[in-house]
Amino acid sequence: MERTKKKMSPRPWLFPRPVLLVSTRDGAGRDNLITVSWAGVACTRPPMVTVSLRRSRASHAVICATREFVANIPTSRQMAEVELCGTQCGKDTDKFAASGLAKQASTIIAAPMVAECPINLECQVRQIVPLGSHDLFIAEVVKTHAHHALVGEDGQLEVEHLDCLAWGDGDFLRLLKGRLGQRGLAVR
Amino acid sequence: MERTKKKMSPRPWLFPRPVLLVSTRDGAGRDNLITVSWAGVACTRPPMVTVSLRRSRASHAVICATREFVANIPTSRQMAEVELCGTQCGKDTDKFAASGLAKQASTIIAAPMVAECPINLECQVRQIVPLGSHDLFIAEVVKTHAHHALVGEDGQLEVEHLDCLAWGDGDFLRLLKGRLGQRGLAVR
Repeated sequence: MERTKKKMSPRPWLFPRPVLLVSTRDGAGRDNLITVSWAGVACTRPPMVTVSLRRSRASHAVICATREFVANIPTSRQMAEVELCGTQCGKDTDKFAASGLAKQASTIIAAPMVAECPINLECQVRQIVPLGSHDLFIAEVVKTHAHHALVGEDGQLEVEHLDCLAWGDGDFLRLLKGRLGQRGLAVR
Repeated sequence: MERTKKKMSPRPWLFPRPVLLVSTRDGAGRDNLITVSWAGVACTRPPMVTVSLRRSRASHAVICATREFVANIPTSRQMAEVELCGTQCGKDTDKFAASGLAKQASTIIAAPMVAECPINLECQVRQIVPLGSHDLFIAEVVKTHAHHALVGEDGQLEVEHLDCLAWGDGDFLRLLKGRLGQRGLAVR
């Protein structure tokens, strides 16, 4: 394996990288959406996630001011909407209107959830860490919403119904709906 | 969709969640491995990632002292090794020996890379943020190694050869080796 590896300039090739639709509401009541992949889980108790945004993004200023957002987990059926929200600018475009995605009221924060996304995490920002091209938002998950089909009787994730997207290096990827056990992959 | 969602206690259901083997070397030259899923990309320039660890973990103390680690991306072929490194304790067990995983020298840091993992990120810790059950390590990727098959002529990721693991909610999942375009999923 050693000889077959290439030493490359440093790049953040940590995979899989999630694809999120981050929704916000500014002080004037204007809602926005942005597609984010620089994100991950940060803590179990309290449940916390990180989301990184470039300072030039409209959502960056809104989250700095309101200190809240929803992390919505899209599925492969929302590919076109995810692409639109990752390429259009919220300063010029109402991305909810342009994408046709529906709003659903959050229970704790003002920012709306994306109704079509089967998982929504209401998040309150606890710390903002400037890193370089991006600022890191460390946020507590204050409420989790999930489609009934994704939640078992024990409250565990029903993984065979999980259909989320990952970001490759210019491509969207899809998570295989299967458990991988000691005996190999069981596709469901 | 609204009525079909369940309001749940807050939990970090951000998917997909990556599966990493984090390797370290302590001041006495002892190497260790730990399986980590609370992780993500944090910045593009400089390239940075986050990795979160419980303070009780052996790797936590080592990374606090050395301020470096390698984030190794395992494949579905390293499932058993990943499970071992996520359940055994490095204080009692030499996990490289127990797993049979081979070491490969890093180029910049002291901690060894996992030879069998097709992607290795040499990381230097820039900030440690205590969050609760976990501390968040914000680290710069100072060198990236990748199997030749994963790197195209343009230096882009050859996503069809990417075989990485994701963490469900008690299960390992596998990333589908396929691009997802506007016309749907093209399995390769």
